[in-house]
Amino acid sequence: MQRVDTLLVGGMVLTMNAALDRYPNGAVAIQGDQIVAVGSADAITAAYEAAEVVRCDDQIIMPGLVNTHTHMPMTLLRAMADDLRLDVWLMGYMMPVEREFVSPEFVRLGTELSCAEMIRGGTTLFADMYYYEADVAAATAGAGLRGVCGQTVMKFPSPDAGSYEESLTYTRQFIQDWKDHPLIVPSVAPHAPYTCTDEILQACADLAVEFDVPLQIHILETRQEADDSWTEFEKKVVNRVADLGIFRARTIAAHCVHVDTEQIRLLAQHGVAVAHNPTSNLKLASGIAPIKEMLEREVRLSIGTDGAASNNDLDMFEEMRLAALLVKGATFDPTVLPARDALLMATRWGAEALGLDAITGSLEVGKRADLVVLDHQPFHNMPQFARDPNSVYSQVVYASQAADVRHTMVNGRWLMRDRALLTLDEVCIRAAAADYAQKMDRFLIAREGNVLNKLVAIGGLHQEESFEIQVKARLDDENIVQQALKHPAVDIVRFHHYRQYDTYFMFDDDEQGRVRYREDDLIDESSDQPVTVRTRLTYTIPDKEREFDEAVLLSHSRFIAPAARPLRFYREYFQASEECEVHKDRRRWHILYKGVLFYLNLDHVMEPATERRYVEIKSRTWSARDAEYKAGLTAELLNDVMGIDPEVRVRMEYVELCQPGT
Amino acid sequence: MQRVDTLLVGGMVLTMNAALDRYPNGAVAIQGDQIVAVGSADAITAAYEAAEVVRCDDQIIMPGLVNTHTHMPMTLLRAMADDLRLDVWLMGYMMPVEREFVSPEFVRLGTELSCAEMIRGGTTLFADMYYYEADVAAATAGAGLRGVCGQTVMKFPSPDAGSYEESLTYTRQFIQDWKDHPLIVPSVAPHAPYTCTDEILQACADLAVEFDVPLQIHILETRQEADDSWTEFEKKVVNRVADLGIFRARTIAAHCVHVDTEQIRLLAQHGVAVAHNPTSNLKLASGIAPIKEMLEREVRLSIGTDGAASNNDLDMFEEMRLAALLVKGATFDPTVLPARDALLMATRWGAEALGLDAITGSLEVGKRADLVVLDHQPFHNMPQFARDPNSVYSQVVYASQAADVRHTMVNGRWLMRDRALLTLDEVCIRAAAADYAQKMDRFLIAREGNVLNKLVAIGGLHQEESFEIQVKARLDDENIVQQALKHPAVDIVRFHHYRQYDTYFMFDDDEQGRVRYREDDLIDESSDQPVTVRTRLTYTIPDKEREFDEAVLLSHSRFIAPAARPLRFYREYFQASEECEVHKDRRRWHILYKGVLFYLNLDHVMEPATERRYVEIKSRTWSARDAEYKAGLTAELLNDVMGIDPEVRVRMEYVELCQPGT
Repeated sequence: MQRVDTLLVGGMVLTMNAALDRYPNGAVAIQGDQIVAVGSADAITAAYEAAEVVRCDDQIIMPGLVNTHTHMPMTLLRAMADDLRLDVWLMGYMMPVEREFVSPEFVRLGTELSCAEMIRGGTTLFADMYYYEADVAAATAGAGLRGVCGQTVMKFPSPDAGSYEESLTYTRQFIQDWKDHPLIVPSVAPHAPYTCTDEILQACADLAVEFDVPLQIHILETRQEADDSWTEFEKKVVNRVADLGIFRARTIAAHCVHVDTEQIRLLAQHGVAVAHNPTSNLKLASGIAPIKEMLEREVRLSIGTDGAASNNDLDMFEEMRLAALLVKGATFDPTVLPARDALLMATRWGAEALGLDAITGSLEVGKRADLVVLDHQPFHNMPQFARDPNSVYSQVVYASQAADVRHTMVNGRWLMRDRALLTLDEVCIRAAAADYAQKMDRFLIAREGNVLNKLVAIGGLHQEESFEIQVKARLDDENIVQQALKHPAVDIVRFHHYRQYDTYFMFDDDEQGRVRYREDDLIDESSDQPVTVRTRLTYTIPDKEREFDEAVLLSHSRFIAPAARPLRFYREYFQASEECEVHKDRRRWHILYKGVLFYLNLDHVMEPATERRYVEIKSRTWSARDAEYKAGLTAELLNDVMGIDPEVRVRMEYVELCQPGT
Repeated sequence: MQRVDTLLVGGMVLTMNAALDRYPNGAVAIQGDQIVAVGSADAITAAYEAAEVVRCDDQIIMPGLVNTHTHMPMTLLRAMADDLRLDVWLMGYMMPVEREFVSPEFVRLGTELSCAEMIRGGTTLFADMYYYEADVAAATAGAGLRGVCGQTVMKFPSPDAGSYEESLTYTRQFIQDWKDHPLIVPSVAPHAPYTCTDEILQACADLAVEFDVPLQIHILETRQEADDSWTEFEKKVVNRVADLGIFRARTIAAHCVHVDTEQIRLLAQHGVAVAHNPTSNLKLASGIAPIKEMLEREVRLSIGTDGAASNNDLDMFEEMRLAALLVKGATFDPTVLPARDALLMATRWGAEALGLDAITGSLEVGKRADLVVLDHQPFHNMPQFARDPNSVYSQVVYASQAADVRHTMVNGRWLMRDRALLTLDEVCIRAAAADYAQKMDRFLIAREGNVLNKLVAIGGLHQEESFEIQVKARLDDENIVQQALKHPAVDIVRFHHYRQYDTYFMFDDDEQGRVRYREDDLIDESSDQPVTVRTRLTYTIPDKEREFDEAVLLSHSRFIAPAARPLRFYREYFQASEECEVHKDRRRWHILYKGVLFYLNLDHVMEPATERRYVEIKSRTWSARDAEYKAGLTAELLNDVMGIDPEVRVRMEYVELCQPGT
């Protein structure tokens, strides 16, 4: 009798080895961190005795699940903001909150919370991409889980680095510090081809090759990325990355939703491992990855949950179930990815994807003891059929739940017994997470309550000290303007013809001011077609208006930002209580009158379809006295030069045209 | 203080009423079977006192989930046969096993097992379609769940009826017996438009209208159904059903995967409720139902799990999660069906679909107390955000699990407290289900071990007592046959020209014989095109061959069946160890030689591409003596009439051409 530390006896052993050996009444012997025997209960108990014998009757003993793509600390952002479009979700919520809150402490806590959920759900190995990755690694090692920890590098400043060089320096140090740890594999994670320059991608690959660590990267999560790559580089994304030599590094590519056949071939050819993230890809509406074709072309496939902020959990049972289901419905083929292969994808293939199949991913002698014991006969998995050897895989994949996991062991150490966590302090984690959530709630409430704060959060804003004098009048006859322009006191400096498409976002609380999204098309006079198109946001709080006899002084607090994202983004982000559209044709002259610069706008409102024409005379000013002087000049221009009775001038702004009663 | 039976106090109350009222520290008061108050804990505890006060801190109190399409007893078939194509799964496994096993006892047990799973997973109301529905109703009432029980009617004999008239008689009695039960709503369930005649559909609608009970029906689960309806009726399925006046009845249509805009409009116009079954539709590769368009066109939508044999569980948390995710990914729109609406779909909208929204589906005063209490703060749902009122729906839909349900109440009665079932005998159900599974395993093992049994299981087979005398020879010159046909002793009776495409399925165990799938194309001589195509299966066990000097007597046990399903079906169903293809061009003459009928085949083998030609002479026989006589005549025909040396005759069968070494 050989003495070992632990014997798991009874129950169905699913080895997930190459032969897919199963032992209906099986056993596993564990010594130290290793599996020393797997077989039938009779054979193993005849040969081994152990201090700890765990009966596993009516249970399944199988390899722990492998989650090949996640962002552990983002679990702290779970359900903070959902059912939004990717850009609103990412740039409107995730990134601003991350900028504000991500710190080593945040990262450690989020990792511990995620480890707790993973251990309870039977995950024993994960691949992470985040910031302060040394803290992810430390928290993971503390929890006793196995992790491939990828330090993010990108061209933008990130919560843990002002520049990519800083990130690279950090990553090098991180790899050196952790490369020999029994549980942690350090890794470099250039965020994505579109957030990295060629130089960054190559530097990351060099680092990965130098230390022989895996490289993690997001690839083609969205169709937008495919389109942009073509526009910017005249290359498909995978081709560009391959051409840059990035695949010299052992690469794990997350998502790969929008890869075509050529790119799938490249992934296969370079042995790139793909982390398939079906929940996140559906939830963020990125699409459905072509994993049937990837399987056919022998791409190395595995499954990841992505971060809990876009999933919303780290449940590999749900994820492998969805992976197995989705590909069938999407390809009208129910025989693709049968349950057995889905479980392989979530175990041994996952370990292969991470380059760790020599030590984990299946129950085989000599591998580390990374395993779970699962209830085989909960009500939702009754009854049991023995005829078809695939039935047990069906049960695990289609009907088992994370809550069916009874015990979890990593590296020969129990992390959970009878659903009690053994390595993490539940009370502390709960309290600290609740505390963070409150802080983030407060931060968002303060921001959401204030349109200006929301604008600041998405970046690019600058305040414009704009004080304008303005008069406006309805016009029945455009010739009045043409005549005025020929007036001897008027010199034309410049002329432009625009079409302006304005969308105003208004809020229940008037003090919130309003946001205008303007598309400014500069029109070529000869062709009547736009030659340039510019979009920008203007935020105004109409709280400092002053009226003169002759004109209005608008001393708005005005903030302007380039509107780099589509109108739809701002609509979904600002959640205005009211929205209105004004489209107009604007002919604008810069004129000098008595040496003062004025803007003279001849506007034809097209939408709302009023068929009205207006003339506007505007001038900038810097002081109240100057304002008074210029107000006088505008009155002269209107009255004396254009012959318009000051009585017919209108005080409304264009936005009021689309409001009831105007 | 008003005295009530039960107070649930604390926790987050989600009423799911029209205003979506939520009470973060709420309470519910229950008297008898009814909810008498819902509100803040402070208000309710100030007004009510109760014998039973249940603290629900850190929990969610919400309406029970409503599963609007399932087949309760089929839970006994869970994981019996998976990852197969719909036809193989249904006609190869489900229907043969149902024919053998479905009985009132089976139905009661399966219903109890399903009720146990549903109660544990927070489902309080379901709609079932099956056989022996009175037994489904009795078992459901016994378990204390609420159910709409639909008795299946169709044009084929079913496990509980030899004809549809029998089913209708049964259904009428069933409705009369159960129509006033507090928990059960009897219902009529014409199986599907393609399994019912117009007459059956109309009789079912009449019955539903007469008793004002709901009518349940499967509609457009597969694309095949859409195609077939067009071919057979020259109408789209929903149009046909609408034209027949079926929607006079309150109709619940399950699946509706392949409805187009016109049919969606019809469903909306007639107020038909749709049960969306995303898991089953993916798993059987039926497709993805267009629920975004259904939502836009205001079709009454709800969620069902379908039977556990195609899911493989009855987990409404998984189902609403998948419903919410799938439509986003499939339409590239992450804002469709936000979590709040997915939860509505699984609660109040479900009750509306079943016509029971007056009494259940939301927590409102006067409705029955059908509710669940759910852990709000398991690790997989930490942390908690309060800013966005939708966060709690996100938590329930995207991250909660069936196992988070702590207590379940239906009609004011606790069915589960602290995860212990109160109305069902777990031990008995488990033992009985295990027993049934063993019996079904044995039945299938006996069948699977025997190709003939598998053939019998799919029906249509007849045994042919076929004894054939046969000689065959290679032919270098086709003119030999033409000459023979002009021989004075030969009279040509008939001539046909075929192209025959044979696929042979062979099995490791030679005693299993082999199955031939033949496509016989009758060729028109003038156009060289097929005029008719016939497919059939032939099963032969080559164990009774006898060789004469001159010819071979083949006294096969031969079974023949029309091959109504595609080759692919048989391939997947028989799971042969080897398969081979023989294609040949066959010219066949029926000739009389010395008054005896012979078949003379001139065969040109096209696949495998041997370019070989053969002549076959065959005759039927009924006795050994007759066989000997005819063997002599075949030798004469070969030798004397055709001038072929008997030494060149070959003994192989065509199937051997595609085997190595021939």
